[in-house]
Amino acid sequence: MSEAAQTLEGWYALHDFRAIDWNAWRALSAKERNAAQDELLSLLHQYKQAEENKTGSTAFYSIVGQKADFMFMHLRETLEELNEVETQFNKSILAQVTVPTYSYVSIVELSSYLAKPGVDPMEDPDLLARLKPILPKAKHVCFYPMNKKRDGADNWYMLSIDERKTMMRSHGMIGRQYAGKVKQIITGSVGLDDWEWGVTLFAEDALQFKKLVYEMRFDEVSARFGEFGDFYVGNLLDESKIANMLAL
Amino acid sequence: MSEAAQTLEGWYALHDFRAIDWNAWRALSAKERNAAQDELLSLLHQYKQAEENKTGSTAFYSIVGQKADFMFMHLRETLEELNEVETQFNKSILAQVTVPTYSYVSIVELSSYLAKPGVDPMEDPDLLARLKPILPKAKHVCFYPMNKKRDGADNWYMLSIDERKTMMRSHGMIGRQYAGKVKQIITGSVGLDDWEWGVTLFAEDALQFKKLVYEMRFDEVSARFGEFGDFYVGNLLDESKIANMLAL
Amino acid sequence: MSEAAQTLEGWYALHDFRAIDWNAWRALSAKERNAAQDELLSLLHQYKQAEENKTGSTAFYSIVGQKADFMFMHLRETLEELNEVETQFNKSILAQVTVPTYSYVSIVELSSYLAKPGVDPMEDPDLLARLKPILPKAKHVCFYPMNKKRDGADNWYMLSIDERKTMMRSHGMIGRQYAGKVKQIITGSVGLDDWEWGVTLFAEDALQFKKLVYEMRFDEVSARFGEFGDFYVGNLLDESKIANMLAL
Amino acid sequence: MSEAAQTLEGWYALHDFRAIDWNAWRALSAKERNAAQDELLSLLHQYKQAEENKTGSTAFYSIVGQKADFMFMHLRETLEELNEVETQFNKSILAQVTVPTYSYVSIVELSSYLAKPGVDPMEDPDLLARLKPILPKAKHVCFYPMNKKRDGADNWYMLSIDERKTMMRSHGMIGRQYAGKVKQIITGSVGLDDWEWGVTLFAEDALQFKKLVYEMRFDEVSARFGEFGDFYVGNLLDESKIANMLAL
Amino acid sequence: MSEAAQTLEGWYALHDFRAIDWNAWRALSAKERNAAQDELLSLLHQYKQAEENKTGSTAFYSIVGQKADFMFMHLRETLEELNEVETQFNKSILAQVTVPTYSYVSIVELSSYLAKPGVDPMEDPDLLARLKPILPKAKHVCFYPMNKKRDGADNWYMLSIDERKTMMRSHGMIGRQYAGKVKQIITGSVGLDDWEWGVTLFAEDALQFKKLVYEMRFDEVSARFGEFGDFYVGNLLDESKIANMLAL
Repeated sequence: MSEAAQTLEGWYALHDFRAIDWNAWRALSAKERNAAQDELLSLLHQYKQAEENKTGSTAFYSIVGQKADFMFMHLRETLEELNEVETQFNKSILAQVTVPTYSYVSIVELSSYLAKPGVDPMEDPDLLARLKPILPKAKHVCFYPMNKKRDGADNWYMLSIDERKTMMRSHGMIGRQYAGKVKQIITGSVGLDDWEWGVTLFAEDALQFKKLVYEMRFDEVSARFGEFGDFYVGNLLDESKIANMLAL
Repeated sequence: MSEAAQTLEGWYALHDFRAIDWNAWRALSAKERNAAQDELLSLLHQYKQAEENKTGSTAFYSIVGQKADFMFMHLRETLEELNEVETQFNKSILAQVTVPTYSYVSIVELSSYLAKPGVDPMEDPDLLARLKPILPKAKHVCFYPMNKKRDGADNWYMLSIDERKTMMRSHGMIGRQYAGKVKQIITGSVGLDDWEWGVTLFAEDALQFKKLVYEMRFDEVSARFGEFGDFYVGNLLDESKIANMLAL
Repeated sequence: MSEAAQTLEGWYALHDFRAIDWNAWRALSAKERNAAQDELLSLLHQYKQAEENKTGSTAFYSIVGQKADFMFMHLRETLEELNEVETQFNKSILAQVTVPTYSYVSIVELSSYLAKPGVDPMEDPDLLARLKPILPKAKHVCFYPMNKKRDGADNWYMLSIDERKTMMRSHGMIGRQYAGKVKQIITGSVGLDDWEWGVTLFAEDALQFKKLVYEMRFDEVSARFGEFGDFYVGNLLDESKIANMLAL
Repeated sequence: MSEAAQTLEGWYALHDFRAIDWNAWRALSAKERNAAQDELLSLLHQYKQAEENKTGSTAFYSIVGQKADFMFMHLRETLEELNEVETQFNKSILAQVTVPTYSYVSIVELSSYLAKPGVDPMEDPDLLARLKPILPKAKHVCFYPMNKKRDGADNWYMLSIDERKTMMRSHGMIGRQYAGKVKQIITGSVGLDDWEWGVTLFAEDALQFKKLVYEMRFDEVSARFGEFGDFYVGNLLDESKIANMLAL
Repeated sequence: MSEAAQTLEGWYALHDFRAIDWNAWRALSAKERNAAQDELLSLLHQYKQAEENKTGSTAFYSIVGQKADFMFMHLRETLEELNEVETQFNKSILAQVTVPTYSYVSIVELSSYLAKPGVDPMEDPDLLARLKPILPKAKHVCFYPMNKKRDGADNWYMLSIDERKTMMRSHGMIGRQYAGKVKQIITGSVGLDDWEWGVTLFAEDALQFKKLVYEMRFDEVSARFGEFGDFYVGNLLDESKIANMLAL
């Protein structure tokens, strides 16, 4: 039996992808559309207050291509709060003209090797900032879920903890080369959703997503053991971009 | 030919996942919505009476993310009773505004090694309580179906019964470390549904689902032989949470 | 090149699974619902006459869970007749409120080793009764399609005919232990539908489906070579059960 | 690098599968239904004229089971003509009450070993009749797409051209035993659709589809290298069968 | 750890596939249909101006078979611009009667071995013309996404950079034999969409797609390492073809 690495967990995460039903949007009156937009802004304002109260954080991005029109990434203390945020949006006017296309439930996760001995991680400001992060307002987002493979000779979970540590260290070195270019948030989802991890990347230059993920693919951890789900990329939605997106 | 382990079976199980069509819910009158909610509470009351009569048990949880809005887990004596419970809900007002998203048919299963020699398991109160269990009212639920792999050298069903017993014993040791934190109900579904087992976990702290499933993944039984379906997690729905969920 | 086993074929089979659109059913008037139910009973009566005329046989079962609400299993002499039975139902009132969810096209199949030398199988009453069977009216049904694997070292079709015969004999021994408990009808579908065989099981006690399929899974034929599709289980629908199912 | 076999190509092919939305069909007036049927017959007449002008050929079959209600197989000189035939049907009344369920784009393909040296294949009447065939009016049709596997040691495209020729010769021998019973049209779809080939079989006795495909499955080409898509089987639709199918 | 090949990137690409809902199209008035067609032509005119301004390029093709009715391939400087082009179309009249069926997000990619040392690729007119290409107006298009396999012994990302270079050189030789017949645009999508590359081919003779892709399949890069998604083929849509397609 191979030893499981220890992990630290922070906020729960819900990625919530939605497509706009443009015919339904058009069928609303101008007044209803204005009300829908106001209500959305008011929800975003409320999410922002959660950030200020340090009770959560929310990112809001458009998605390029047909997989979705926009995505919320919500971080909150509990699964109940995520459920409430989700149900609250489902009752909004905008939700009436959107179709859910994908969602992902996970929890912010760090390796426990980052914890200082004898210090409660939640009392360590650096760790706390990573376990309960304020999501960046970068121009672009990229999300994908992933597994570590368990296939014949390529079985991550049958490796010794030392083999895994060595490989993960080399893997982390690539990530560090993108410091300042790509901000990465890893969320664990074993027991919570269909893949083992979610990866959310933020960058000012979307090309860095490709550069980073491509370079990592040649690293043994990804090359032999990485299994990847669908990829979503998008652009930051601020108030003026929301208005443009919704204007008919 | 490898020898099949002996099993004991109890109640049949139906996991029934549903999404709310919020536009349809909103289209009902306030009076109809009240009637729908009353009828739901009355069904839940009826399920509770089955528990009191020891003729079954039902759990009711919200589901986080887009896979469903809520889930019933019904345990009953026969497939016919499960069919009746399911059809009864299909005729309710709430069902008119919900969409079925997933279901699972299985039967509560225990290893027969737990049976005392010469004692009818159904006369052994400990076994009976596990074969026909009253489902916990824990804050969180987690459900996933799984198979034992049959892939080249990783073929569970080609192992000897002794190899399987040894591995399962080590696997069970992990589970025991979570005693008091996670309550686990295993249901067998070979010949009944698309996977071989369903696993339903109950916990006060949802993080324990991740800890338990992650730790088990490094155990050879899961690492080499576990194949997992989709994971559903959710929160207990009591009367006040139901009211919140349905309030517009 | 490996030698194909010889087979005998009888009636063509169509398994036809349907879900009820309960909102559409409710939207019909009581009069239309009565007419729908009468028409269904009249179709069932007509199917029964085919049995009496020895031109076919039909089983009608509810299905537990969301995969379907009911299933017809039709046996007829030709693909044209199956097409007619299917189209006839599509034009019925009940079909207006149902959604097709799955179907399977196959043909009753026996190993030709069962044929007596020099006797036309269709003149042998025992074989005839198995090739053109009257379907049982057992309380429960189980259906699943399956393949024999062709994957690297586990390639059924690269084995010699003697290896296959030896394994199938041991496999058949398990089946025989369930004689009187489970009635099994094998239909071949190579060249007719997406899997190679359909397996339809009938039993008074649904637990026997699990016991049989689980025990067989440890047999080398299933363990190394069996690939299984979705499993459907259900309960016999007689006139009173139909009335219960459809009553609002 | 392994050498690609040379091929000859004839007409482009479009298999177009459709399901009837029976509620929509019923919602048309009797007059509209008559007009729809007349228009269908007029399209079929037009397709027949293409056959007479040697500019194409079309087969029209019902499909058994829920995968579709009917299928057109169109052969034409160019992709543009296939697009026109398809769009023309999409604008018909019948199309208004049908739902597209599957389609396949390919091109009639023969091995170039059939070509006589120094003779333009299109000037060789035997080859021309096979590259631009008039589709049979047999009672039954069977369609399925397929690949040659590229999986570890079972990689067709890594074999030498001689190994492939030897295996294909043995494979062809099986086909020849069914001469007069099954007419086979192979269409290539590498670069045109999701599988590498489409196989369309025509027979007076549908059982021959099963016999042929089953026997071939034990041949090394299929056993080790064949990957198969979904199978469709159906019955010839002539004017009276069309009337029966559409009559309410 | 294997070394990643260096790449040059140009314009971002969005392939946008749509099916026409013919019933919805028919339900529009003649006036609305004219307006829809005019608006489409005006969008195409606007896309053409982007080409003239060298700020992007757009191709517009019909698709044969049921996968879609037409496809836009948009090239633009940024993901934001692609998002705007997509949203602009979503608000058009034609979009009201179309259903999105598939999309693909990627970026034009070249091997950096093509770059001259010491020269900024964006200052090299040959490279610039390939990184920010004006899409051809060829009669036919073919699109498919692909991966390099990571499966046991067939793991592209575990090969040395020299092994990969040697294989890619031989692969490129096949492509060069089709110079003048097939124009190929490779777009990279690691980190942007579900496959690693998109391949878009343009040709006057659609048969060349099959010839090229088939010949390449025997090359070790494809034979051992190529994994292919769905294939789409279609015909150029100019003003008169658009009018034909949309005329009722």
